[in-house]
Amino acid sequence: MTVSFEQLFQGRIFSVVRHRSQTPDGRSVVREWVRHPGAVVIVPMIDDDHVCLIRNYRVAVDESLIELPAGTLEPNEQPHQTAVRELAEETGYRCQKMQPLLEFNMSPGITDERMHLFLATDLRPGEPSPEAGEQIENLALPWDEAMAMVADGQIKDAKSLVGLLLVDRT
Amino acid sequence: MTVSFEQLFQGRIFSVVRHRSQTPDGRSVVREWVRHPGAVVIVPMIDDDHVCLIRNYRVAVDESLIELPAGTLEPNEQPHQTAVRELAEETGYRCQKMQPLLEFNMSPGITDERMHLFLATDLRPGEPSPEAGEQIENLALPWDEAMAMVADGQIKDAKSLVGLLLVDRT
Repeated sequence: MTVSFEQLFQGRIFSVVRHRSQTPDGRSVVREWVRHPGAVVIVPMIDDDHVCLIRNYRVAVDESLIELPAGTLEPNEQPHQTAVRELAEETGYRCQKMQPLLEFNMSPGITDERMHLFLATDLRPGEPSPEAGEQIENLALPWDEAMAMVADGQIKDAKSLVGLLLVDRT
Repeated sequence: MTVSFEQLFQGRIFSVVRHRSQTPDGRSVVREWVRHPGAVVIVPMIDDDHVCLIRNYRVAVDESLIELPAGTLEPNEQPHQTAVRELAEETGYRCQKMQPLLEFNMSPGITDERMHLFLATDLRPGEPSPEAGEQIENLALPWDEAMAMVADGQIKDAKSLVGLLLVDRT
């Protein structure tokens, strides 16, 4: 049973909320979590055997990670639109076919961030248009090479691991 | 180049920080992210063909998710210790062998949360000791059934997807 709900912090992309509730046996439970608009991650197949990954500098971990293209939902944007937009912005690729594969929760102990996974095919190359401050470069790889980088720990971004491992099974 | 770094919010488990930096061409870049102590996720094999999952009620998504056992690092705790402790607390299982498999980043656009994946074998059943407010129950499943729940979207927790899909490949 919810006792109270308050916003503790409002940021540019996410906020932090605190939720107090009571268990049936009368104990009080407090949880703080990050409220997030949701995001998309895309497996872009350049052809049947090549995937387009990116190298993406991440301030929070101070490292360039090898990832799938991804991005946050803008207000009033449907995940499919976000996927088409972010793929073009980050990699330059325009895609004819953006197929939803799975929705999953990124880190449900601390955030409601929901991730929408897409498979992009029928790609046409174009110019990327990164947002201010984004440091991104394309990394086109044979599928087997990408999976080898999953196995040896070179790819260590959770959403990218889920996307690559799931598509590899199908 | 870092220009400034400030803490915006201090919570019970995580904090929020703001980082201002300048690109080589002089543009200012601001990033807010969640500073997190890190966590572990465990693939507990009851025998060669059965894995112990949990049903875990998650306040942030208001849903009981099917997950692998997992938990947050306590101060001064090594990931291996956290894995042994959390497996016992959440499932009751004491394990003789806790093998590190991979470290990965949960959601590097908004947090530095680092996840340590372990494979637990040689398990002995015991009494779980959930923390206050945790609503957890064990779900022992044949491996193929767990993987079917990955494929059909019943398991939709990112760290659990990574753990199950990675172990399935090996």
